[in-house]
Amino acid sequence: MVLKKDGKSQARAGLIKTVHGEIETPAFVPVGTQATVKSLSNRDLEDIGVQIFFVNTYHVYLRPGLQTVGCFGGLHQFIGWKGPLITDSAGFQIFSLGEGRRQGRLKLREEQDVPLVRITEEGVTFRSHLDGKEHFFTPESSIEAQVVLGADIIFALDECIYYPATFEYVKMATERTGRWAERCLTVSRRDYQALYGVIQGGVFENLRQASARDISRLPFGGIAIGGVSVGESKKEMELVLDWVVPHLPEDKPRHLLGVGEIDDIFTLVEKGVDTFDCVMPTRLGRMGHVLVHSSKWTLDITKSQYAKDATPIDENCRCFVCQNYTRAYINHLFRVKELLAYRLATYHNLYFLEKLVEKIRFSIKEGNFLDFKKEWL
Amino acid sequence: MVLKKDGKSQARAGLIKTVHGEIETPAFVPVGTQATVKSLSNRDLEDIGVQIFFVNTYHVYLRPGLQTVGCFGGLHQFIGWKGPLITDSAGFQIFSLGEGRRQGRLKLREEQDVPLVRITEEGVTFRSHLDGKEHFFTPESSIEAQVVLGADIIFALDECIYYPATFEYVKMATERTGRWAERCLTVSRRDYQALYGVIQGGVFENLRQASARDISRLPFGGIAIGGVSVGESKKEMELVLDWVVPHLPEDKPRHLLGVGEIDDIFTLVEKGVDTFDCVMPTRLGRMGHVLVHSSKWTLDITKSQYAKDATPIDENCRCFVCQNYTRAYINHLFRVKELLAYRLATYHNLYFLEKLVEKIRFSIKEGNFLDFKKEWL
Repeated sequence: MVLKKDGKSQARAGLIKTVHGEIETPAFVPVGTQATVKSLSNRDLEDIGVQIFFVNTYHVYLRPGLQTVGCFGGLHQFIGWKGPLITDSAGFQIFSLGEGRRQGRLKLREEQDVPLVRITEEGVTFRSHLDGKEHFFTPESSIEAQVVLGADIIFALDECIYYPATFEYVKMATERTGRWAERCLTVSRRDYQALYGVIQGGVFENLRQASARDISRLPFGGIAIGGVSVGESKKEMELVLDWVVPHLPEDKPRHLLGVGEIDDIFTLVEKGVDTFDCVMPTRLGRMGHVLVHSSKWTLDITKSQYAKDATPIDENCRCFVCQNYTRAYINHLFRVKELLAYRLATYHNLYFLEKLVEKIRFSIKEGNFLDFKKEWL
Repeated sequence: MVLKKDGKSQARAGLIKTVHGEIETPAFVPVGTQATVKSLSNRDLEDIGVQIFFVNTYHVYLRPGLQTVGCFGGLHQFIGWKGPLITDSAGFQIFSLGEGRRQGRLKLREEQDVPLVRITEEGVTFRSHLDGKEHFFTPESSIEAQVVLGADIIFALDECIYYPATFEYVKMATERTGRWAERCLTVSRRDYQALYGVIQGGVFENLRQASARDISRLPFGGIAIGGVSVGESKKEMELVLDWVVPHLPEDKPRHLLGVGEIDDIFTLVEKGVDTFDCVMPTRLGRMGHVLVHSSKWTLDITKSQYAKDATPIDENCRCFVCQNYTRAYINHLFRVKELLAYRLATYHNLYFLEKLVEKIRFSIKEGNFLDFKKEWL
């Protein structure tokens, strides 16, 4: 539900209602790959103001497995998280972990190393990155898995397209994604689950537009824009949004998959995206890159220049970490590889981003989003 | 200050006053080796009811170094912990890491591997376990380091004695510990710091008694009993306490170094010990061994039998973990090696132990400690 549109851009402030609570948009969606936002408790997430988080179907399908989560009635009960959740189709991990293997970044025993991922019209065969065991996912079985997991927002299975890719391949994969989208819609879901269709099309204007039109005319609860985070430049993300957004229905929520750097957030909100997930703030945090309100947005807290720095990570931040810990102490924790390091940095980064997005929402409602953007960038 | 003595045993309930707060005794002292109780924030420690924790001088001397902690005025400010702290003399780590190297459990480059630890009357030369660099500690420099660190309770440098050891070696080392104790007392401390002398003597009755008398007659603020956790049996710990305690002054607090399993806690309290530190509950927690009120005291939450167990770790526990998480979810976190696993298990174990020791204090004050012990063991 769109509550307010920015007069000078496509930015929109809205509300997504779920049985597990409302999500004020624009909203950043942290990623809890293995059914946990790494290092944080549910209470931490609530304290930070996280409204919803993202769980990867691929990972929980492998461990602990659908049967275990099913025993609990779904991820909400399994995790003990009362708010809304998103799961993806497993497609991205199937394709990206397969790609990682092809490029030699992920290693299995040699005899298991081929084939990586085998795609047919019916579905996709892949090997687990854990033990090399073969699994088969179809559009239908992806939805069935997500029904067991029980997230509030779920995604149709798409074929993730690598970059760079030829026009012919992108066209074929995008069209198949369209056919898979229709098949996903045939599967019964829990009453409360909103199924989002996924737009592909690479960096080809007419393919993106066709995909946007195809997905938009289907009875999905929301629209996701995929394939934007895979090797494309920031400029190309802008182009894709410019091609796609005019074809999207006004009344459906729009999710951008896998993007969430600070400057990107301003761009995608300006172009009319409502929600967006990204591992960036949590992954960077665990590497010691903490978010600050400066021209570069992050500082590397592990550097020796912070070893005696008695100031908080960010002087204007009101998070539990910045109110209680110095840069020097966090620097020490990282240098001696203490568990608390990863937790404090993750907490701060998520809080920092939540507050930024909260201010963005406020600026849209107040009608000064572009001024606020200028002030920050 | 002893508030109440148990009529039927040597158990005592008391109070240790420090400028950073009071410690009700008997008290368990968790270990925060590198100036952090692994995985927990200061707020967690407060929520658990931790009254005081232990930092290892050896580790913080190496990283971040005395100069850095000194810039902050001491560990309290560096960590941001407002309650009382204990530091040790560094002796135990110097000797035990040296011993680990001798036994091949710790490896340095070969040319750095000798000598491990070189003891003279003046002090001890050792190599850092991090980079093999040589360091020299004397009784005086150990106290000077602990003055920089600024903990409320600090320890005299002792010579840790390995087990088994000959009478001649134990006698020589125990006598040197006595001479070192006197030298420690000559160093100026911060007004508020209580210096504890350390009793050694191995498992030889007359050496333990002589050491207890020697240390007790010196003007220490408290008495520590060392060398009990190193390879001795539970029976030998009881013997050592029986030999030593009759020689201790009633009015000084007594600390037992490095012991804290559930049955040991009942024994050492019964024998008249006030405070005791141990890495057990935190280290076991990180391995997935969580404390429960059953005959074996722990269960291995990583076992597959808990993968679908919807109950909390301990049904009677009121900690944040048991109120919010199931065994199944924690089992999953351990199996996929998620950071939150170590935190939840550590939190629960410390809470479980704090509550047990709180009940022990209460039972002493109520005059039914031995009944309470029988009920638990």
